[in-house]
Amino acid sequence: MTPITARAILTPALVVDCKVLDQNIKAAHSRIAETGLRIRPHVKTHKSLKIARRQLAAGAVGISVATIGEAEIFSQICDDIFIAYPLWPDEDQFSRLSLLSRHCKRLAIGVDSIQGVEHLAGSLPNAVELMIEVDSGHHRSGCPPAEAGTIAKSALTHDLKFRGVFTFPGHSYDPDGTRTATFDESLALEQATKSVRETTGLSSIELSGGSTPSFRNTSDKTLTETRPGVYVFNDAQQWELGTVGPESIALSAYARVMSAREGYIVLDSGSKILGADKAPYSTGFGRLLDFPNARIVQLSEHHAVVAIKDGPARGSTVRVVPNHVCNAVNLVNELFPINCIEAPTSWPVDARGRNR
Amino acid sequence: MTPITARAILTPALVVDCKVLDQNIKAAHSRIAETGLRIRPHVKTHKSLKIARRQLAAGAVGISVATIGEAEIFSQICDDIFIAYPLWPDEDQFSRLSLLSRHCKRLAIGVDSIQGVEHLAGSLPNAVELMIEVDSGHHRSGCPPAEAGTIAKSALTHDLKFRGVFTFPGHSYDPDGTRTATFDESLALEQATKSVRETTGLSSIELSGGSTPSFRNTSDKTLTETRPGVYVFNDAQQWELGTVGPESIALSAYARVMSAREGYIVLDSGSKILGADKAPYSTGFGRLLDFPNARIVQLSEHHAVVAIKDGPARGSTVRVVPNHVCNAVNLVNELFPINCIEAPTSWPVDARGRNR
Repeated sequence: MTPITARAILTPALVVDCKVLDQNIKAAHSRIAETGLRIRPHVKTHKSLKIARRQLAAGAVGISVATIGEAEIFSQICDDIFIAYPLWPDEDQFSRLSLLSRHCKRLAIGVDSIQGVEHLAGSLPNAVELMIEVDSGHHRSGCPPAEAGTIAKSALTHDLKFRGVFTFPGHSYDPDGTRTATFDESLALEQATKSVRETTGLSSIELSGGSTPSFRNTSDKTLTETRPGVYVFNDAQQWELGTVGPESIALSAYARVMSAREGYIVLDSGSKILGADKAPYSTGFGRLLDFPNARIVQLSEHHAVVAIKDGPARGSTVRVVPNHVCNAVNLVNELFPINCIEAPTSWPVDARGRNR
Repeated sequence: MTPITARAILTPALVVDCKVLDQNIKAAHSRIAETGLRIRPHVKTHKSLKIARRQLAAGAVGISVATIGEAEIFSQICDDIFIAYPLWPDEDQFSRLSLLSRHCKRLAIGVDSIQGVEHLAGSLPNAVELMIEVDSGHHRSGCPPAEAGTIAKSALTHDLKFRGVFTFPGHSYDPDGTRTATFDESLALEQATKSVRETTGLSSIELSGGSTPSFRNTSDKTLTETRPGVYVFNDAQQWELGTVGPESIALSAYARVMSAREGYIVLDSGSKILGADKAPYSTGFGRLLDFPNARIVQLSEHHAVVAIKDGPARGSTVRVVPNHVCNAVNLVNELFPINCIEAPTSWPVDARGRNR
C-alpha cells in the first residue's frame, strides 16, 4: 500500500474523491429503496473490496459480477453473488463454480439458450441458480423474451435451479435513448415472465435489470432488483448523456501538462490510464473536470491532446474524467483516495484483469 | 509462471505465435539493416523482457520507451535507452532519472520547448542527453521543425547534452497517409537539422523517426535510426491499413463463443482484453484471424458481438486480433506463447501499467 499525501499523488493516477463517492452511493441506494427495488450493484466498475463494502453497508442485497474471477475475489466479503453473464463454462470454470458455490449462500449465473442449459446440465453444482438473460433491445447476448419459458422449462427438466430473468438495457447509453430503453426493459421482462409462467407454472420469478443511465426511472412495478455499476463514480459518458452533472463525478485521472502550443495542451494521461473508449455521442476522449469547454481531441497511449483556450501552464496538474470509468479502473493496480476519513493508503483494484 | 499446454490456454487470453514473432523481427531488422539505418524498437508495444531480448539479439542498437517506469524495467537488459517522450519530470522523476542514468551507458529523453529545457536545467543528471521532438504532421507533441535550433541552443547554454532530433509520424495511421507521412517525416527532420546546424554549428545530429506503417519506406538518406514498435506482433490496424497481411499477425486473443443468434456470435473477449481502440478507418473492434469476412460490430467489457455468416458453434474457440496491440497487451499480466522452442511457460508483461 502506498501512503498518500497531496504530494504523493504523482501523475498520471486515478484518484477517488471519497466524499463524492459516498454521496453517490447514498443518493442512489436511497432512491432505489424508495421505489421498493433491491439493489445488487455491479462491481465490475470498481473491482474494489473497499468500495463493495460501502455498497453492502448502504443496503445492497448482494453484488453482480461479470466473471467467475471477479466472483472469487468478492466472495471474501459477500455471499450473495450473481454472475450476470451467459456463461459457457469450460472444465476449469466448472470446478471453480463448484468451489465458489460452497463459499456462497446464494450464487446465480446467466444462461440465454437451450444449448446453454444442456451444456450446464450435469456439470453445474446443484446450489447454483439460473437467471435467463433476455435481450431488451441492446442486441448483445440474451434470448428473445418469448423464448425465456422454453429455456426455463428445459432447465427444470435437467434438474437445474431457476431463479428468474434478467436483462441489460444497454441501449440506454444514448442521449435520446434512456427512456425508451427503460420502457423496452420493462416490456421484455414482462414478456419473459409471462412466457416462463405459461410454460412452467412458476410464479416466483426474480426480475433483474438496470443500468446507470436508466435505473432512476425504474420501480418495483417492473423489476425486483436493479444492477447499476457506474453510479458510484460516474464518468464523462454519464456527464455527456446528462445522467449526472460534473459535481457527481467521484473519479478522475490526475494528469500534468507536458507540452503546449497555441490552443492546445498535451497531458501525460493517455489511453493506458483513461482507456480508449469513445462512444458515438462522446465529444472527445474524456473531459477535463475543471475546464468544461476543453475537449480531448486526440489520444495516444501516453498523450492526451486537449483543445483549450488559455490552458494551464506546462507542469500544472489537471483532473481528467475518463469516458468509461470501468475500463479506466481496470488499467491500474491502485486507486488513490482523497477526502477520506480512513487511513490514507491507496486502494488496490482487487479484481483487476480477472477476465474469466 | 503458468505452464502452458494447448489445454492450458483458457479464454480469454492473449497468445503469441513465436514463429510469426521471430519472422516479423527478422524481416523488419534485415530490411532496416539494408537501408543503412539503426533500429531502436519501441518496447511499449510488448512491455516484455523476453521479446526485447529477441530484438536486441536481432541487431537493435538499443530501445525506445515511453516512460521512466518502462526504462527502469528494461534497464535490466539494455543500457542504451531513449525515453521518446517530452518529459516534464517532477521531483520523484528527477531522482529516478538520476538512478537510471547511472545504470545506463546511454540515456536520452525528449524535450519540445525552451520552457522544457529551462525546467530540466540544473536538475537533469549530467549524463542524460536531449532529443528535441519536432512535429512532422501528427500534431501531438513536438515543436515546429524550424524552432529546433533555438531549443538546442538553449540546451547548450544550460550545459545540457544535445543528441539530436526526433519525430513520430503518427499520421501514417491512415489508409491514404503512409507515404505522405514518410515524406513529412523526412522534411521535418531535414528542416530541424538545418535549424540546429545554423543556430549551434553542431554537425553530428541523431535523426530518429519511424512508425510501423511507415518505417519500410525510410532510409539513411533522411534518418539515422528508426523506432517502430507494433511490427513485432502487428494487429488489426496494420492489417486494415494494408501494412501487413494476416499471416504476419503474431498476437491474438483466444476467445470462446458464449452466445449466438442468426447472423451473430458473442465472444468472451471484450474491451477488458482487446482494448476499446477504434480508429476512424477500422471496420470494427478487432478482426477474427480465421474469419476475414466477420466483423466485431459491438464491444462491451466482456462481450464481442460478431456479425458472421454460419459462425462457429457455442463453446468453440476463435482467434481475435486486437485493433491496437499495445493497449491490449497492457491489459494482461501474462502472454501465452505457442510454437515456441523455449520452456512452455507464460511470459510476464514486465512493464504493464508503468505509466510514469
